[in-house]
Amino acid sequence: MKILHMDLGADSYDILLGHGLLDKAKEHLNLERRVFVVTDSGVPAQYAQRLAAQCKAPTIACVPEGEQSKCLSVYADLLGQMLAAGFTRADCVVAVGGGVVGDLAGFVASSYMRGVDFYNIPTTTLSQVDSSIGGKVAIDFNGVKNIVGAFYQPKRVLIDPDTLSTQNHRQLVNGLAEALKTGLIGDEVLFHIFEQENALEKLDEVIWRSLVVKKYVVEKDEKESGLRKTLNFGHTLGHGIESAVGLGELLHGECVGIGMLPMCQTPELRARVKATLEKYGLPTSASFDREAAYQAICHDKKGSGTTTTVVKVDLPGQARLEQVPTASLRQLL
Amino acid sequence: MKILHMDLGADSYDILLGHGLLDKAKEHLNLERRVFVVTDSGVPAQYAQRLAAQCKAPTIACVPEGEQSKCLSVYADLLGQMLAAGFTRADCVVAVGGGVVGDLAGFVASSYMRGVDFYNIPTTTLSQVDSSIGGKVAIDFNGVKNIVGAFYQPKRVLIDPDTLSTQNHRQLVNGLAEALKTGLIGDEVLFHIFEQENALEKLDEVIWRSLVVKKYVVEKDEKESGLRKTLNFGHTLGHGIESAVGLGELLHGECVGIGMLPMCQTPELRARVKATLEKYGLPTSASFDREAAYQAICHDKKGSGTTTTVVKVDLPGQARLEQVPTASLRQLL
Repeated sequence: MKILHMDLGADSYDILLGHGLLDKAKEHLNLERRVFVVTDSGVPAQYAQRLAAQCKAPTIACVPEGEQSKCLSVYADLLGQMLAAGFTRADCVVAVGGGVVGDLAGFVASSYMRGVDFYNIPTTTLSQVDSSIGGKVAIDFNGVKNIVGAFYQPKRVLIDPDTLSTQNHRQLVNGLAEALKTGLIGDEVLFHIFEQENALEKLDEVIWRSLVVKKYVVEKDEKESGLRKTLNFGHTLGHGIESAVGLGELLHGECVGIGMLPMCQTPELRARVKATLEKYGLPTSASFDREAAYQAICHDKKGSGTTTTVVKVDLPGQARLEQVPTASLRQLL
Repeated sequence: MKILHMDLGADSYDILLGHGLLDKAKEHLNLERRVFVVTDSGVPAQYAQRLAAQCKAPTIACVPEGEQSKCLSVYADLLGQMLAAGFTRADCVVAVGGGVVGDLAGFVASSYMRGVDFYNIPTTTLSQVDSSIGGKVAIDFNGVKNIVGAFYQPKRVLIDPDTLSTQNHRQLVNGLAEALKTGLIGDEVLFHIFEQENALEKLDEVIWRSLVVKKYVVEKDEKESGLRKTLNFGHTLGHGIESAVGLGELLHGECVGIGMLPMCQTPELRARVKATLEKYGLPTSASFDREAAYQAICHDKKGSGTTTTVVKVDLPGQARLEQVPTASLRQLL
């Protein structure tokens, strides 16, 4: 087992990475209390059950699979379940699943009684390499992604790569797109694993390297006032595309992959990234309504009105932020 | 003008107290951006308008007066208004009103785009002496008060005692009950102002002394893991009574006043506090459904299941916490 310590003062926590951790959760988490286990219908039910079996007083809440569960009504339903089951401030919430479950359960944990302990047990590549750490929790609202939420750090994160075995290939590769992004903004070696080796055969190292970069960035800038924005590489255009192609057509990581290409600042790098995406079967273009994508970008959190902060990469591992007129992004789509 | 600095590390802020501050808000707040001004129908409309007149791009949102506005649907409506008006992370929310407006607007500010700047301009005694500082924001949910919210500190608080002139006498005195509470737990001199002088004639000093005690307590224990619980003196029974008497029958401060009496640990102190409440026309008893009040206490955030932390006062200015069986509170009602 490897341990990564996220140093955020009073909000510090450990990220544990190891095969078989799910079944040893009670050695690492305080489960001797009421535990609200949040999962979704796309996650094998056994994962939440295996966690619940280690808890003193578990309540399992299973929401429908997919982004549409990140909404105010599901959020309210979960709060209501906790209240009905008599959860107090001393109890906790555990997310068992992917990014949707983590974002949703994290926002519930952040706001129930003004905040209860939150643990995250990510079971998808996307959440293991990226979304389970860093403390961004949120729901979507009025058609805009992640517009209502909080910065709320988990108390501990358990990453068990064994849980990835049940993920289908498309989902697995979709999550790896975020790791590829992380390599491009902060770890040349990680990018080379994707480009020159087979990332699918080196999952443990891909996860670990992704977490190390993210830890470094989040520690420097927890609330995303500067450096942390580099983690949004590919996301400005990616979120726009994700909104415009329609729910479920393309996955989050797939859109981020497409969104990275115009932000690679040399033709050589763009060609290398495109070839790498293709190598893993990730899309490099999509057909979507340009205007709808542009409107979604205008509503995104990365903008401050007429300008938007975008992330550009010149060489693998080297990202920089640039303020550009939001209107200029219309061309890039 | 007096300035009190709340020292909470990265979340530190200043509390400004001075006559006429409302009309000088732009000297002290950054209003050169989109400003979401939240007020309610019980607050004179001119207050929000006078603030808005100083803003570059104001949007005034007026919610119905009363606790029932602290609910999920009003919360969602406010978020939707901000989104429709194009608010970004660089914009801000200002509460102009009492505790309801501050709690509601604060929770909106804490969660819109994971948090935007929040300013509070309290216009009632209750909010000026207590609820506008300390960072507790929340809405009610499924009949339980303040059950969904956050710890989210304002960027600045402007307290203008001139705004109290439009408050009716009952509301004014209701708010003073919280200041009396603060004197009892942490400032003997403040209690003596109530007991031996006329607090209504010394409002500036009452506000200032209340804020100084609260600042001290919040700085020591921002997230209410220990000392801050002393600020809940009178609130455990008070919230129960407030729930049981039915909406609008008794005001929050009035219930807190009643709830303090059984927690005074000597007959002499109890008699002194009772006489002081009566001196200001505050109720010292109420008729309500004991069982309903007890059930509300069981759902309150101060409990950890079978036990509840209550605050007891032995001498004016000296409070202590005690864990008691929740069932024992049934007798005290």
